[in-house]
Amino acid sequence: MPFNELRRDYLLDRWVVIATERGKRPTDFAKKETAQARTGVCPFCPGNEHMTPSAVLVYLESHGKIEKTKDEDDFRHRNWIIRCFPNLYPAFAPPKEKTDEWQTLGSRGFAAAVGHHEVLIESPIHDEHPSDARIPQLVHVVNAYLDRLRELSSKSYVRYVSIFRNYGLEAGASLSHAHSQIIATPFIPRILKEELKAGRKFWREKGECIFCNIIEKERNSQRFITENSDFTVFAPYASINPMEFWIFPKKHKASLLEISETEVENLAKTLKLCLGGLKSLLNDPPYNFGFHIALNKDAEPYYHWHLEVYPKLAVWAGFEKSTGVYINTVSPEAAAESLRKAISA
Amino acid sequence: MPFNELRRDYLLDRWVVIATERGKRPTDFAKKETAQARTGVCPFCPGNEHMTPSAVLVYLESHGKIEKTKDEDDFRHRNWIIRCFPNLYPAFAPPKEKTDEWQTLGSRGFAAAVGHHEVLIESPIHDEHPSDARIPQLVHVVNAYLDRLRELSSKSYVRYVSIFRNYGLEAGASLSHAHSQIIATPFIPRILKEELKAGRKFWREKGECIFCNIIEKERNSQRFITENSDFTVFAPYASINPMEFWIFPKKHKASLLEISETEVENLAKTLKLCLGGLKSLLNDPPYNFGFHIALNKDAEPYYHWHLEVYPKLAVWAGFEKSTGVYINTVSPEAAAESLRKAISA
Repeated sequence: MPFNELRRDYLLDRWVVIATERGKRPTDFAKKETAQARTGVCPFCPGNEHMTPSAVLVYLESHGKIEKTKDEDDFRHRNWIIRCFPNLYPAFAPPKEKTDEWQTLGSRGFAAAVGHHEVLIESPIHDEHPSDARIPQLVHVVNAYLDRLRELSSKSYVRYVSIFRNYGLEAGASLSHAHSQIIATPFIPRILKEELKAGRKFWREKGECIFCNIIEKERNSQRFITENSDFTVFAPYASINPMEFWIFPKKHKASLLEISETEVENLAKTLKLCLGGLKSLLNDPPYNFGFHIALNKDAEPYYHWHLEVYPKLAVWAGFEKSTGVYINTVSPEAAAESLRKAISA
Repeated sequence: MPFNELRRDYLLDRWVVIATERGKRPTDFAKKETAQARTGVCPFCPGNEHMTPSAVLVYLESHGKIEKTKDEDDFRHRNWIIRCFPNLYPAFAPPKEKTDEWQTLGSRGFAAAVGHHEVLIESPIHDEHPSDARIPQLVHVVNAYLDRLRELSSKSYVRYVSIFRNYGLEAGASLSHAHSQIIATPFIPRILKEELKAGRKFWREKGECIFCNIIEKERNSQRFITENSDFTVFAPYASINPMEFWIFPKKHKASLLEISETEVENLAKTLKLCLGGLKSLLNDPPYNFGFHIALNKDAEPYYHWHLEVYPKLAVWAGFEKSTGVYINTVSPEAAAESLRKAISA
């Protein structure tokens, strides 16, 4: 079969991609090792482009100007500063021909995992992670997110685009070179669907964006962490991860597609500041982050894009997994206090 | 404040216990170590009862007979075979006086985390885990689950009782002595609520239990693993964990409170067989398991208790955490095939 399968739980509105194209067999789990650990060579570093699929987007720098291209045949081994290519083992893959398969989602409890799964190399420098990257490089990263988001969200079979980052082996990063991932799905994921539903309800009842309301309240709470002219950062009231924090744009927008150049720069600065604070506070802990955005046009008045950062400091165990209720041993108020201090130090 | 706080997300129907009574400070996460690793002494082993709170249930063996008691003053250092006591750092704690606090859940988005959190030591033998325990000992474990479930579910402020097991450090077990945990909550957890809702809907529409229907289908599918006269084991169709499997009683019951002696023995045998198979197949991997039960009387016709086992072989990363969609690199069909072989080997 050409696609991975998307399957819905018997009872829950919970979907899983059975990503057998990754070719793992059960016994592969008996011992873990990564390609990098095996060979000592980083496939994401310059010079090793042949170890990954061809790029869908490359930023080249020449004479201080950025050139964007897809065709890297002539550019391999030249000075790329951002490089984005399909994941070698994609969870979601584009349709090879026109097909209606993806429209069946929900009706039968299964579907083809049609979409995209890309890896975005954030820098030619192996460990130039956002916590200590140069701001101009981080600006390129955010711009590349925008480029890929724009292209992927324009496809007829794409309903959502998830941009996320895994940092550290314990947080699921099997390769340590600075990179993010982008997954385009043929449906709106569960957490986003719930947020959209609650946002729409609040907007209809109160006539305002629930997120704008939350930002204003949290700016003046013990959970506030930092802000600049464009972004506010706080630890969410019901954080399910120790030290979790959320980055919100002050300007109300459902998607990040239309953010301004100044906002891009301020997002880059906010990322560096907050992830740098987390790093210095907790000795470089693993973490995940994910953008939350809305791509459906009607969501413009009631959805507000943002970025959620989940430090990976605890293990969700039997209670969390079997009930869907979480235990967090650090209050968001204490988390915010520590992060405020770490950031200003 | 006397209780941990239960908090609801701004938008999602997602609850978290802010368990600050555990006394962790953010910087405690910079380096991890467990009590056991620090001292080399296991607080759960016989002779170290003073290192844990007083028991709420003890099984003593004398002349081949089991005596159940709560009062262990005279029995400390005698031959207990099962011991259950409150968690030293409980996520949920019983009310100290009559209070209506727990009734506020849902209306305000926060509540007191009223309930119970217990540790059940499964054996005086440090590493007598279900995968290789003696069947009579596992029968005691299941009986002790039943005793605690009976007592906790009779309390006016308890709406649900979660019985779960964490095995291995990566699966959240900070101490390696064979033990389970029991958490009684003042509300029905999210996953259970969703299952109940879907089960009720199916029953109203089709006049039968959806779980009975699933068991019959999966018994004849590629996902079937094993069965005996009382239990059927299979890999669920939309497994979100590699090698996940579910153990279902053949007899339709909402809660496990009324299971027969024969069923208890067959559950013990099923646990040993399946967890033993998992252990031999994957070189003793970490895992979690959790019982799913219904305590509300009206659920009798449409809910069917069962046990879900989640091997901990993958990391849920940025995509899973920010979207609620999962990627599983092992198909449940391949998982079942491997487990069938491992069990029969």
